[in-house]
Amino acid sequence: MAAVWPAPSIGRQVADKGAGSKLNGSPAERVCYNPTEPNLLTQMTVPRLATAQTGPVLSLEKQILDGMPRIEHWFRGQWQEHAAPFYASVDLRNSGFKLAPVDTNLFPGGFNNLNKEFLPQGVQAVMTAIEKVCPDARGFLVIPENHTRNIYYLQNVAALQNILQLAGVKVRIGSLLPEIAAPTALDLPDGKKLVLEPLVRRGNRLGLADFDPCTILLNNDLSAGVPDILKNLEQPVIPPLYAGWSTRLKSNHFAAFKEVAEEFAGLLGIDPWLINPYFATCGEINFQEHVGEECLAGWVDHILTQTRAKYREYGIQYEPFVIVKADAGTYGLGIMTVKDASEVQGLSRKQRNKMAVVKEGLQVSNVMVQEGVYTFETVNDGVAEPVIYMIDHFVVGGFYRVHTQRGVDQNLNAPGMHFEPLAFEDSCSLPDLDGNPDCAPNRFYAYGVVARLALLASAMELERMEAALEQQSFPQARAANT
Amino acid sequence: MAAVWPAPSIGRQVADKGAGSKLNGSPAERVCYNPTEPNLLTQMTVPRLATAQTGPVLSLEKQILDGMPRIEHWFRGQWQEHAAPFYASVDLRNSGFKLAPVDTNLFPGGFNNLNKEFLPQGVQAVMTAIEKVCPDARGFLVIPENHTRNIYYLQNVAALQNILQLAGVKVRIGSLLPEIAAPTALDLPDGKKLVLEPLVRRGNRLGLADFDPCTILLNNDLSAGVPDILKNLEQPVIPPLYAGWSTRLKSNHFAAFKEVAEEFAGLLGIDPWLINPYFATCGEINFQEHVGEECLAGWVDHILTQTRAKYREYGIQYEPFVIVKADAGTYGLGIMTVKDASEVQGLSRKQRNKMAVVKEGLQVSNVMVQEGVYTFETVNDGVAEPVIYMIDHFVVGGFYRVHTQRGVDQNLNAPGMHFEPLAFEDSCSLPDLDGNPDCAPNRFYAYGVVARLALLASAMELERMEAALEQQSFPQARAANT
Repeated sequence: MAAVWPAPSIGRQVADKGAGSKLNGSPAERVCYNPTEPNLLTQMTVPRLATAQTGPVLSLEKQILDGMPRIEHWFRGQWQEHAAPFYASVDLRNSGFKLAPVDTNLFPGGFNNLNKEFLPQGVQAVMTAIEKVCPDARGFLVIPENHTRNIYYLQNVAALQNILQLAGVKVRIGSLLPEIAAPTALDLPDGKKLVLEPLVRRGNRLGLADFDPCTILLNNDLSAGVPDILKNLEQPVIPPLYAGWSTRLKSNHFAAFKEVAEEFAGLLGIDPWLINPYFATCGEINFQEHVGEECLAGWVDHILTQTRAKYREYGIQYEPFVIVKADAGTYGLGIMTVKDASEVQGLSRKQRNKMAVVKEGLQVSNVMVQEGVYTFETVNDGVAEPVIYMIDHFVVGGFYRVHTQRGVDQNLNAPGMHFEPLAFEDSCSLPDLDGNPDCAPNRFYAYGVVARLALLASAMELERMEAALEQQSFPQARAANT
Repeated sequence: MAAVWPAPSIGRQVADKGAGSKLNGSPAERVCYNPTEPNLLTQMTVPRLATAQTGPVLSLEKQILDGMPRIEHWFRGQWQEHAAPFYASVDLRNSGFKLAPVDTNLFPGGFNNLNKEFLPQGVQAVMTAIEKVCPDARGFLVIPENHTRNIYYLQNVAALQNILQLAGVKVRIGSLLPEIAAPTALDLPDGKKLVLEPLVRRGNRLGLADFDPCTILLNNDLSAGVPDILKNLEQPVIPPLYAGWSTRLKSNHFAAFKEVAEEFAGLLGIDPWLINPYFATCGEINFQEHVGEECLAGWVDHILTQTRAKYREYGIQYEPFVIVKADAGTYGLGIMTVKDASEVQGLSRKQRNKMAVVKEGLQVSNVMVQEGVYTFETVNDGVAEPVIYMIDHFVVGGFYRVHTQRGVDQNLNAPGMHFEPLAFEDSCSLPDLDGNPDCAPNRFYAYGVVARLALLASAMELERMEAALEQQSFPQARAANT
């Protein structure tokens, strides 16, 4: 289904439309915050970003801009208390009425998609990160995913290697693949080569035949579990092994995000729902054997009911939906868009197969039900969602994930997607405080703020995992904001 | 005298030209490091930088590039031990055979000249600086120079204010001028306004009538001394008051730089002279009354002799010169180019007047004699020298100071200079490690490294001033590397 704005199916008309219509522009209008204009929603010119972006923008963006000094002061305090992950990417969805993270990746794989102009910021952020984490580091060993035929992923690894090298560290790539028995140069489209080398473990140190790195940097999300060769290393492993998908749960992340969002919303005096999707979890699901379907249906209904109430409160005339996805895992497998609880009962064999297994054969048993956030951004003819990249606690770039074959209520991280690396003409850290008509920078500042909230949630999530590990009770933590 | 390369007067032919000719390309050749080419000096294409830059580049640049991981590792260690000043700019001179700092400004006044593309790096660096210096800061009060009619300087203040605001702090400008008795909006060429406001002191806190800032940021070099209103404040003052020209001495800076340069040169295995100009100081000079001329002539001769020996060692066929300047002060007043000791004896009345007083009437009594470094860079028809801007320990931009009416052996910081803000197309932090033919980024990386060495020297200089102040023995420190 190729659905682009204004295609989303409109649900029932909301009764108290007048009272709740905080959004009162036509959704086809292009709107932005303009401080000289007293109304919250004012016209904006086409952002330099070459999109057909049309969603109404809530006062959220205005409040984020107005609150900038308070926000940055608050972030400074947070980063004094919580150590940001070395790097992360956050998928956002912007429905105009809501701007929220829907996934936070601690092993980001799209550095090749960042605008080249962001490179200096990335290098500077890596310098800061290294100073904090391992100031004495001279050499990094990067452990990538095992996708030796995915040219895009290989370009990501090369881009990451380049950023690290430009920050002044020696960087080599060690592969977990047994077939990499000797240094193997893979050709990249730009004519350069990426050299994968066989890992060599000596006692509790990991390296290459002629390379003893100070630090191991994982760009592998460990969906298949933690390989023995990575266990009990004396070198620091960044991010920590427990950040991998064999132990990490999305629900722990969003439980932390709920706390962050509530504190942040308190700071700005806004409804936390504007940045935080509802969610719930179901354990012990077995799609193949129809085990747990009723529990799942119950939570789907609960989240839809909560969302419907919020849509009514704000006079939003769209049909609520939820996303059902594995609580552990990535790569857009095992993700369903659901608009009614009945849809998760009596799933077809094809649907069950799709949901039952995610990347690298990891079985789905814990499932997360998350309020769906429409994305009303489009790039050319594709539905688009912004992806924000961070190193340490700095936004270092972003791009749009675009899918021309998906709808505004669907997961875009799926085969057929592409990236618009040039989309962010302006840095996310540079709002135009004078609010000139081309306000793309302002929108991107808001994106950077919400992405950093998700990053902060990850910092807290990882702290708690570490604490739980120390108490041997890991990974029992479960949470929901229902 | 409008002198551009290859106009510098060539002194005597050096006897052992063959033995010492580490520089053996024609100076008119355009050269750069290319790792695939075994010779140190290889051809490069025209840098994107639109200059007629032609100087021969010594192996220094190659060694800096090759040493990058060692250099960055070393810097990381240094910044663990020494706190970088909040901001600084460094004037460099690049003669091809030598790349050295000649002035380090702790109250940089050219933020308006930076390429707009550097802004995100500047903002990120300010964020880091604030986190270190005053993480709880919400409001900064900037104290600028008293140049209300210098539109360029006002633009600098506006640019600085913008960077700070983008980092999320409230920034207002408080003027030391008594005539600023009420908020005064000054028009800027871009249509914006800079608002200067009268300072209000309440007890030991400095602010504005309706603004109680957390931090005072000086963009005033205190040449006229420390005003009472700035003394004994309970708020942090950045940079510290003792960094002003009423107490700071260039010779203390270059004494620290000598140590830094020697350690760095040891790291790379190079002659420290390649990055460090010889210098000496004479105290108790009174130009008007011809007091101290003999002492000065003696040091001039000494530095010229040392420099001549180095030129001979390296087969450099130019005439050595020294720069005689006030040990305290700025703005390019009180600066002479001298090629023979006799020139500083029997100065004309005009020359004496020029040397005797620098900015804001500060009397010259301590004089520094510094080895002159030719600048063989030109931008269009003007002699050019790079100026590198740093915030915290990050390079955040740079530009060329250009003077079409000055020679390659003269101070360019003088009336008639202009700036080429677009000169640095590439960031100083991004060398092209694959050494592609357009190697402007590589040269700029080297500039960033040498500028950071000067920054490190400033960090040490300020530490020592603080220690000396605590011992009440300040500012007695004198040093020379002779």
